[in-house]
Amino acid sequence: MPEPIEFYFDFSSPYGYLAAQGIDALAARFGRTVAWRPFLLGAVFKLTGQRPLVEVPLKRDYMRRDLARSARLIGVPFVLPTPFPFAAIAAPRAFYWLADRDEGTARALARRLYAAAFGEGRDIAPAAVVVEEAARLGVDRDALSDALQDPEVKDRLRREVETAVARQVFGSPMIIVDGEPFWGHDRFDQVATWLERGGY
Amino acid sequence: MPEPIEFYFDFSSPYGYLAAQGIDALAARFGRTVAWRPFLLGAVFKLTGQRPLVEVPLKRDYMRRDLARSARLIGVPFVLPTPFPFAAIAAPRAFYWLADRDEGTARALARRLYAAAFGEGRDIAPAAVVVEEAARLGVDRDALSDALQDPEVKDRLRREVETAVARQVFGSPMIIVDGEPFWGHDRFDQVATWLERGGY
Repeated sequence: MPEPIEFYFDFSSPYGYLAAQGIDALAARFGRTVAWRPFLLGAVFKLTGQRPLVEVPLKRDYMRRDLARSARLIGVPFVLPTPFPFAAIAAPRAFYWLADRDEGTARALARRLYAAAFGEGRDIAPAAVVVEEAARLGVDRDALSDALQDPEVKDRLRREVETAVARQVFGSPMIIVDGEPFWGHDRFDQVATWLERGGY
Repeated sequence: MPEPIEFYFDFSSPYGYLAAQGIDALAARFGRTVAWRPFLLGAVFKLTGQRPLVEVPLKRDYMRRDLARSARLIGVPFVLPTPFPFAAIAAPRAFYWLADRDEGTARALARRLYAAAFGEGRDIAPAAVVVEEAARLGVDRDALSDALQDPEVKDRLRREVETAVARQVFGSPMIIVDGEPFWGHDRFDQVATWLERGGY
């Protein structure tokens, strides 16, 4: 049984949203599973001195166009939420807390939050929004609300971010196949070729 | 007769090198021609505050891996020259001077210089190297050497860079199809789909 493909993403990353639409199906075509690994891009940017794309003149306008166009191509709705960029910290904390209990529900929550942010333009930064979306999946509100304040849950995310940085994850999405990193939604074709040929 | 597809690139851009391998064939599949438009990425970076990829920690290491891997996939040699990054100014000046006389020779020179830099790892920044490569294509050494010092030739490149910036070209390669910009070698698939469907 091969290792899962690792899917690193930030909940505030629109290209992560696009990648999330297809990553499971792509892996399944090659009999593989996916480990979803949300992290905090902001923590990585501090190390690399990068700025969010939206703050770079010229690139910013292109990015909006490219995102809308790429979404049309794969047939999903797309809207850049306001405010953007935003820091999504409650979302990954909730994800890992849930994932330790029920991986499927954690992934369903990730999909819901991504759809809320980039499909409907909603602000998913507030913990209350994350709790509300989780509740719709049957998660206990109080338990999750408490968890989001729990130092152990905060530590869990901190460790995941440290692991991501140690693995040289500097962007979102980043897909790692058997140790080989692919950065960007636009590398899906290369990921597919890599899986098909077992490397190249 | 549709307008040519515009291919903006910097001679010091390794992703531009990769794109240069396939752009003419891609256009030809759809009965289109390509206008090659070298420019100076450094001039754009000054406006946008970007840094060369190679100066960004983490991203730098990934870039080397991604370039080598992408080159293997399309079956072309690849080596990052020393020094890198470098400023290639004589090359685009020579290109436009030649293009005004003989478009085919200008393009042949561009291919040669890209192959020298990223296929063989040679330093193509010196004007002498550009003149030498052009001479192999039958270009008169003295005429080109004089041209590279000619204020009008320098102005010509300056105007091309201004045009690129005015058209919001902020990266290399950038491919513009009927006004629609696509940034990056990894957007070839989207360019192909755009040409096939006439937009999406």
